[in-house]
Amino acid sequence: MPAGFVAGAVAAGIKASGRLDLGVLAAVDRQPLPVAGVFTTNRMRAAPVELSAANLAASEPSGSGHWGRAAAVLSTSGCANAATGVDGDHDQAGLMEGLASLLGVPPVEVLAISTGLIGTRLPVDRLRQPLRELVDHGLADTDDALLALAEQMCTTDTRAKSASVSLELPGADGGPRAVGVSGIAKGVGMIHPRMATMLSIVLTDAALEPWLLYEMLLPAVMRTWNQLTVDGDTSTNDTVLLIASGASGAAPLHAGSPEHDRLKSSVQAVARSLARQQAADGEGATTLITCQVSGARDDTEARAAARAVVASSLVKAAVHGRDPNWGRMAAALGNAEVEGRPVSLRHEQLEIAIAGTPVFAGQPLDFDRAAVARAMDAAELLIRADLAAGGDGIGEAFGCDLSERYVVENSAYST
Amino acid sequence: MPAGFVAGAVAAGIKASGRLDLGVLAAVDRQPLPVAGVFTTNRMRAAPVELSAANLAASEPSGSGHWGRAAAVLSTSGCANAATGVDGDHDQAGLMEGLASLLGVPPVEVLAISTGLIGTRLPVDRLRQPLRELVDHGLADTDDALLALAEQMCTTDTRAKSASVSLELPGADGGPRAVGVSGIAKGVGMIHPRMATMLSIVLTDAALEPWLLYEMLLPAVMRTWNQLTVDGDTSTNDTVLLIASGASGAAPLHAGSPEHDRLKSSVQAVARSLARQQAADGEGATTLITCQVSGARDDTEARAAARAVVASSLVKAAVHGRDPNWGRMAAALGNAEVEGRPVSLRHEQLEIAIAGTPVFAGQPLDFDRAAVARAMDAAELLIRADLAAGGDGIGEAFGCDLSERYVVENSAYST
Repeated sequence: MPAGFVAGAVAAGIKASGRLDLGVLAAVDRQPLPVAGVFTTNRMRAAPVELSAANLAASEPSGSGHWGRAAAVLSTSGCANAATGVDGDHDQAGLMEGLASLLGVPPVEVLAISTGLIGTRLPVDRLRQPLRELVDHGLADTDDALLALAEQMCTTDTRAKSASVSLELPGADGGPRAVGVSGIAKGVGMIHPRMATMLSIVLTDAALEPWLLYEMLLPAVMRTWNQLTVDGDTSTNDTVLLIASGASGAAPLHAGSPEHDRLKSSVQAVARSLARQQAADGEGATTLITCQVSGARDDTEARAAARAVVASSLVKAAVHGRDPNWGRMAAALGNAEVEGRPVSLRHEQLEIAIAGTPVFAGQPLDFDRAAVARAMDAAELLIRADLAAGGDGIGEAFGCDLSERYVVENSAYST
Repeated sequence: MPAGFVAGAVAAGIKASGRLDLGVLAAVDRQPLPVAGVFTTNRMRAAPVELSAANLAASEPSGSGHWGRAAAVLSTSGCANAATGVDGDHDQAGLMEGLASLLGVPPVEVLAISTGLIGTRLPVDRLRQPLRELVDHGLADTDDALLALAEQMCTTDTRAKSASVSLELPGADGGPRAVGVSGIAKGVGMIHPRMATMLSIVLTDAALEPWLLYEMLLPAVMRTWNQLTVDGDTSTNDTVLLIASGASGAAPLHAGSPEHDRLKSSVQAVARSLARQQAADGEGATTLITCQVSGARDDTEARAAARAVVASSLVKAAVHGRDPNWGRMAAALGNAEVEGRPVSLRHEQLEIAIAGTPVFAGQPLDFDRAAVARAMDAAELLIRADLAAGGDGIGEAFGCDLSERYVVENSAYST
């Protein structure tokens, strides 16, 4: 847990299972901290998303809801509070105002995230007392507290997701300061670009302005979370927040400085790790699929092509069956689009490799199918493709296999 | 079978099962007939698609590959002849030239369709003798002959698909002539807009120019086959052909005439029936899902919204589990896009009904979940949504539930 934050979580009775379902992250000194946010593009945005974007915008009008300042984040799980109408908006606003008064901060400085069943109401009356107890006695600045928050976010996740990177940045006196970047996230269903994070929070104790945080967050989102798909459905609640406490004592970062670039890389490394953990824990998944594409006209086309492969139901089913059925991968590459325009590829020179074995190079290659099938029987599978489109665009995407268990989980229970 | 055509199919050994896998459709008098075609947008277009589009374009340069004239169609199944490189192109061209010389027509007047495994070669040497026998002795102008061709197209289909409509049009002498419109199609996996037909051929014995056929075919494709999804993967081989023999004796149709409009409606009715049969026979499917959307800004947005619902894995799994989980439908509507732009909807007034029961109207509605779940347990399910976007756009889309059997079929076998 980077310095300057406290966190905690309790079981407040939203989840029937009795597991952690109410969490709080706050600035240790209750002062508003620079924060950048990216929210779902789904038009049925949940109440917490609407209110968080509105509060961010109000705290810093120039950020148009992308950046601003906040002192706390309220996290609920087990109920998405999406498609709940104006009553759901009131529920959410009441809870956020409740947290604001418990912390003694203005309501506009509270953001919220939420995940769970769409279309059910939050049991707000039942949450007030646990929320008070959590704020009064349950917040701590420890790693365990952050991990409790990560666990609280989970719904059908089989494990909590977290990642950390440490780096050194110069302090105001020129001496070195240890800076941390730590992220938590939840998966694992209704995950698809655009903004396929579901919920992620990344914290750092570096010091920098809100707009610089957004400049750091957006490319990380584009290269990692927007390249993550589990089932092709973008959630109503997707939210990623990047918050900087400045508590490391490191000097404020300037745009374009080498220090800024190093922090940016660290944020991206944490985001990539979280996105891969989310893919690996996709509902019913047994294999994390990474597709890396080169030779595209540009990076945008490479990312779209990689995403098309990991999003293909037929590719996902073939990986589940350990079947090196590269024809489905070729078809998926041929379907890739960027905003309605097809991605360029030269099929006479297209190359595809599965788990390191070339299987297609302008035409089918002879290869040892049994050996490749054995190599596919792993926790992680790499599919590589070169589009030969005459550019040097590269990109990657993350997904998982499609199993009978995905169908059973999603047909047998309302989630 | 409309007048003016002959068809037939044989088992030539492409399919290991020994079922029908080689088919021919031809003009009864071997004269080139007006034809319009729509082909897959997949960039990895199969050899038969490339060659058919090229031949169409050569037969009528002004049609840019969308319309022209052809005397015959060669149909192979069990092997897609896609991603087979230049050798695959040669295989395909050789077979098509073989059929042309057997029929005594110029090679440019032969089109081809194909479906099956991607990345394997056609066993061309094995096909020459059966093709000769089929042309010499196996072609007939009967309904059974057309149905044999429909059966020949099938791969993992559980049943052949066909549809017919009859109408009366005026003959050259002003007297009535009986005109037929008949279509055949195959499903059932790797099906997704754009051009999610897999293979369909629609025949009529009306008389009209090639470009008028295309003007008739394109809107039918947009409203029916482009609204069909089974698994989100657009095939490398999708082809739909509309061919007019003129053999009914009806007078040639003029653009914009009432007769033209009536034939257009008949073509669309046949297309819609075939698309629905394809959805109902989707791999592993137990339920045909139709989503109808109203209140959209325009028809294009309505169709995109309807498609988003039937394409959602989570909606498909919920339908399989007979779970009236409308939250997933709301989320899918919120994800709908037209060329990268979100589809307009007003969520305060959005309405959703499942099997006739309103479940959401700006906010969750109380409804009898058990009764709706029972109503969902049917061969066909209707989901209705009104986007309240301030327009009068309407549209529909067709899909099917997602079952464990879909996963088993597609992970256990290379298809």
